[in-house]
Amino acid sequence: MQELKERIQREGKVLPGNIVKVDGFLNHRIDCQLMAHIADEFARIFDLSQVDIVLTAEASGIAMSAVCAYKFGLPMIYAKKAKSDNIEGGLYQSEIYSYTYKKKVTQILAKEWLPAGSRVLILDDFMANGEAVRGLCDIVRQAGATVAGIGIAIEKGFQGGGDRLRNMGYNYHALAVIERADEYGIAFREE
Amino acid sequence: MQELKERIQREGKVLPGNIVKVDGFLNHRIDCQLMAHIADEFARIFDLSQVDIVLTAEASGIAMSAVCAYKFGLPMIYAKKAKSDNIEGGLYQSEIYSYTYKKKVTQILAKEWLPAGSRVLILDDFMANGEAVRGLCDIVRQAGATVAGIGIAIEKGFQGGGDRLRNMGYNYHALAVIERADEYGIAFREE
Repeated sequence: MQELKERIQREGKVLPGNIVKVDGFLNHRIDCQLMAHIADEFARIFDLSQVDIVLTAEASGIAMSAVCAYKFGLPMIYAKKAKSDNIEGGLYQSEIYSYTYKKKVTQILAKEWLPAGSRVLILDDFMANGEAVRGLCDIVRQAGATVAGIGIAIEKGFQGGGDRLRNMGYNYHALAVIERADEYGIAFREE
Repeated sequence: MQELKERIQREGKVLPGNIVKVDGFLNHRIDCQLMAHIADEFARIFDLSQVDIVLTAEASGIAMSAVCAYKFGLPMIYAKKAKSDNIEGGLYQSEIYSYTYKKKVTQILAKEWLPAGSRVLILDDFMANGEAVRGLCDIVRQAGATVAGIGIAIEKGFQGGGDRLRNMGYNYHALAVIERADEYGIAFREE
């Protein structure tokens, strides 16, 4: 998606450790009109007539996914990060490893909001190692629902998460795949 | 807002301790079309020509605020909950008390995304004791910005947070003010 790549090139910051910061338009300050353009692009890629609900993960995926779900005319759910002291019953749970916080995190989703048989479009703003999305796929499986597609705004291709999901046969698409991010700048994977 | 009150009456669950759960449409599963109607209502109440940016708090305010900001044609920012080990420089910080988690929480916002002089519309899904919004107002003050308005979807009137903000002179509006929530049901404040 050309507009997104241009924003990454123009406004993204590369920090030591190949970290790409895009918090000026994607996940701290959010350009909601860009989110709508991202929604239009996902609507071209995925067959939304075969999707019942949008699923994302707390917290940075919520803003983009909410605008997408609104434009798709679909409801949205998000998996919460569990605090150890408030895990109740009636929840799907998935253990993932957070590289950001360098510890295990439990994603939780109330069972009543993801009925068996639902066709789920998983959306997230960022894909690095893929742990968050792996956890979401696991929750969909636990629910007896199906993953209709996985849509990512920005993938860090060199961290392997996206390719693992492609190789598993998921209907996976990322709008901008960063192949290199270092002191020389940001380069995208050829399409 | 009649549509919102009807949804609360029909789908809200009252739990012991006067807790009102509306996670089927507002803050776990999100009815994004309802969020758009909420945006239309806020657009009638607030003069959006006098607003530069929408500000909310992680995590439950994000979905509603993103759809609102999209419909308003405005950018959105959200204050994050700080993890003690990743507070860097360049941040506004506000200490609030979380009644949900029964502990102090630090809200953080990167200074670069809230320029001095900005006219800020604070939005949140829920108002109880008002700690989250009090923290957001404090961040706006630190930034040398101004609070153009405070818009809340559901206020628990009997917990006092909304009335405190009204008494402080803020341009504060809630779309549904719950006056009572107990084993006999949910009652709204007369307008």
